[in-house]
Amino acid sequence: MTNIQTAETAGNDAFRSIDAATGLATGEAFAVHGADDVATACAAADAAFDAYRATDNAARADFLERIGEEIVALGDTLIVTAMRESGLPRARLEGERGRTVGQLKLFAGVVRRGGWMGVRIDPALPDRAPLPRPDLRLRMIPLGPVAVFGASNFPLAFSTAGGDTASALAAGCPVVVKGHPAHPATGAMVAGAIEAAVAACGLPKGVFSHLVGPGNDLGSTLVQDPRIAAVGFTGSRAGGLALVKLAQARDVPIPVYAEMSSINPVVLLPEALKARGAALGTAFVGSLTMGAGQFCTNPGLVLAIEGDGLDAFVAAAATALPDAPAATMLTGGIHAAYQKGVEALAGHDAVKTIAQGKVGEGVAQGQAAFFETTAAQFLSDAALGHEVFGASSLLVRCADENELHAVLRAAEGQLTATIQMDAGDAGMASRLIPLLERKAGRILANGWPTGVEVAHAMVHGGPFPATSDGRTTSVGSLAIDRFLRPVSYQNLLPELLPACVRDDTDAPRLIDGVVAG
Amino acid sequence: MTNIQTAETAGNDAFRSIDAATGLATGEAFAVHGADDVATACAAADAAFDAYRATDNAARADFLERIGEEIVALGDTLIVTAMRESGLPRARLEGERGRTVGQLKLFAGVVRRGGWMGVRIDPALPDRAPLPRPDLRLRMIPLGPVAVFGASNFPLAFSTAGGDTASALAAGCPVVVKGHPAHPATGAMVAGAIEAAVAACGLPKGVFSHLVGPGNDLGSTLVQDPRIAAVGFTGSRAGGLALVKLAQARDVPIPVYAEMSSINPVVLLPEALKARGAALGTAFVGSLTMGAGQFCTNPGLVLAIEGDGLDAFVAAAATALPDAPAATMLTGGIHAAYQKGVEALAGHDAVKTIAQGKVGEGVAQGQAAFFETTAAQFLSDAALGHEVFGASSLLVRCADENELHAVLRAAEGQLTATIQMDAGDAGMASRLIPLLERKAGRILANGWPTGVEVAHAMVHGGPFPATSDGRTTSVGSLAIDRFLRPVSYQNLLPELLPACVRDDTDAPRLIDGVVAG
Repeated sequence: MTNIQTAETAGNDAFRSIDAATGLATGEAFAVHGADDVATACAAADAAFDAYRATDNAARADFLERIGEEIVALGDTLIVTAMRESGLPRARLEGERGRTVGQLKLFAGVVRRGGWMGVRIDPALPDRAPLPRPDLRLRMIPLGPVAVFGASNFPLAFSTAGGDTASALAAGCPVVVKGHPAHPATGAMVAGAIEAAVAACGLPKGVFSHLVGPGNDLGSTLVQDPRIAAVGFTGSRAGGLALVKLAQARDVPIPVYAEMSSINPVVLLPEALKARGAALGTAFVGSLTMGAGQFCTNPGLVLAIEGDGLDAFVAAAATALPDAPAATMLTGGIHAAYQKGVEALAGHDAVKTIAQGKVGEGVAQGQAAFFETTAAQFLSDAALGHEVFGASSLLVRCADENELHAVLRAAEGQLTATIQMDAGDAGMASRLIPLLERKAGRILANGWPTGVEVAHAMVHGGPFPATSDGRTTSVGSLAIDRFLRPVSYQNLLPELLPACVRDDTDAPRLIDGVVAG
Repeated sequence: MTNIQTAETAGNDAFRSIDAATGLATGEAFAVHGADDVATACAAADAAFDAYRATDNAARADFLERIGEEIVALGDTLIVTAMRESGLPRARLEGERGRTVGQLKLFAGVVRRGGWMGVRIDPALPDRAPLPRPDLRLRMIPLGPVAVFGASNFPLAFSTAGGDTASALAAGCPVVVKGHPAHPATGAMVAGAIEAAVAACGLPKGVFSHLVGPGNDLGSTLVQDPRIAAVGFTGSRAGGLALVKLAQARDVPIPVYAEMSSINPVVLLPEALKARGAALGTAFVGSLTMGAGQFCTNPGLVLAIEGDGLDAFVAAAATALPDAPAATMLTGGIHAAYQKGVEALAGHDAVKTIAQGKVGEGVAQGQAAFFETTAAQFLSDAALGHEVFGASSLLVRCADENELHAVLRAAEGQLTATIQMDAGDAGMASRLIPLLERKAGRILANGWPTGVEVAHAMVHGGPFPATSDGRTTSVGSLAIDRFLRPVSYQNLLPELLPACVRDDTDAPRLIDGVVAG
């Protein structure tokens, strides 16, 4: 599979990299991959699967770390290319590169420690009455080749070598990436780095393939290929649900891990508002407008009980927001959808505009916006709870704690739920938490939901429609579990058993259900 | 919710318990539960959820054990009732009761040890540069109320208080059982035992409800209730797929764990056949005909390479099978479907009948059957690979190892795959295992797939269509994971955190990804 093509070799079917700031197709040309390319990539992934999953933990960890080294070796060209294609600033992309490399290292550590294999051993009990117990040993094995859809909003950390790719490779699954068409040049560079690592580690080429093209056909064909065993996706609700539908309609349905849509409620409790309403308003604007609001965890919904503290919060936000600069959005399409969402809120009978950010001057620049409504109005129109991807948020004024709970109970599943609280709010917070647990994958206090730590205890997931599978996370080391399934071995001769379930294994394991050292 | 009704109180809408041996409705009458009863049960389950999931591990484990005690306290009446409704013999049902109680104890132990909570703690790193790391703590929480569909073939161990119910209750999920209409009296007695345990442990009534009725409407309504968060099912492929479709079409789709259909290939390797072909033939007939062949793990497909040993196997099976008595099947419907399946194989141009068991004399008695075909013929007609639920099996004669692999590669996903092997078969077995791992949830050597140990290292699951979700098991302690999802807590005050993720927790946990004592 040729991943990078110049305008000269790409031919008529080429599409070009677009400069986000100008909207002009001034970058390199890329061949549009088609059904034949999908078939080739999937056949290679399937052929590589048994060899790749048979690599030992040390070799697989080395490979993950090597990918990180190859990405770093791309140097500043990668950053400059990603800046041009995404419109995101240098510091953000340098940080994102660090996150991407750190994520690969995290999974390398997980693979080396071996807990991911989930080893369980129940030794035979030949003398048990009335029937002897057979020897039973269990380990997790990878599902098979995984299709990963790169996201536009994190061209490094959630794209070609992002969390889905890293966790699938860590699990032992070959990966076929459908690169995001908003950053084909960035994607091609990163794909080249992964391919270099595959070669350097002596792995079969089919362990990784990269397909690109505009439109939806490429991705649809990929998800329907019978050799694909699971799908990772970060993007819109419509896109995620379309992939879920295709995956479920296959002769053999497969899991789709789609991280889709969340408005990330932030609950401002009374004592916190009383003590620092104004400071919270200013900080809120910072979180809202960071990265042009293009985060899955952007605070799109603010809930609070009426009172002086809330007025101070609103006043401070209304003061800070008009100074927030307009920012180039990732693509023209995302900007158009944002504009449409903001206009719908601004024109809604039940919604009042609190403040807006600076008007954009360049192409596809998003103007931040903060709106308000009442709990009763919010509850009477489900559309007010839909995500507007970008720097837009809606304050819902609640009369009391009951109304606050009613709004949260009616809310859809979320990635995050935030509580701003002071000591005096503890009672109210403790009553909120059981409700928030049922709604969100992550509950945080006295911070803002933007900023997702890549860690062992992170959950970047949540009940539908935040994701298509609320039992999982797409960030953090637990993400590896998405690509594994258990296999039990009964009475197999030791020499036929996988090494990790033999008596002399050093893998973390349960013996008769009890943690063994 | 009234679970047991007599003919007097049940009214016109009643349906009766049927005697499996006579096909006559001589037993008690039961009210047919309808949409209102579903709504009442689901509302009660939802209302009970937060209180039930807040129980500590010791209390929840005591509750599970109490259910087992209440089932034992039902005494011989339970066994006699189940014998009448299922046609299964006393010894089998006494064993199944032991298994059911043992399963509840197993989950009690799992709950007490606390590993199910999946605790992970990543302490704050306030001095990390460029950004501090927040305090992150993760635990698994239950999904919510679970709908469990009782199976007909294990009226105790896979029904009202079976593995799905035990694992969902262990996870902290209230359960609404849709009892199997083939054993309403058995189901009502067991439901009464669970309700007695709920009361004795001071839990909210909604923790458990039991609904019964003939037909499919009751189950459909239950799966579509918005308060139901997951479904457990053991039964036919058609039934399982219908539930999956309903679950996916909901406004909020939910997971369905359906254990559906498997023909459990048994591979007879050449050296084993040479050494003990005849003994294997006799033992095979024992596994095939046990319990009228009504096991999910019944050996419905036998694969072997042509040779003298295979001829000895076939001859011994052909000698043993005619002596196998006909056995009463679970229901008239199951018997009719079995007859149809056997007749289709017997009349198939490419299939030869090796032998049949004794002809049945009573109502709904199944006559065992063993057929053979060639690999080429098997590969040319997918219908030959479909399950015939009951004591029917098909031998596929393979020319060589390549053809054996080709048949297995073409096979659908399976619960089990069995290898009969001697020392000289080790090379062939080691080439088979990677292929079998991709096809089945359990690989066993020198035994028969019937007999599923309830243990920590058991997998009773497998790739589609063996189940609707090959990432899971419905038997063994790993089954609890089906009903859990992760929640992460960021920077919460210690007093607001769940006890299991506080610094002073004694739960098994990862700290910074490393197992802590």
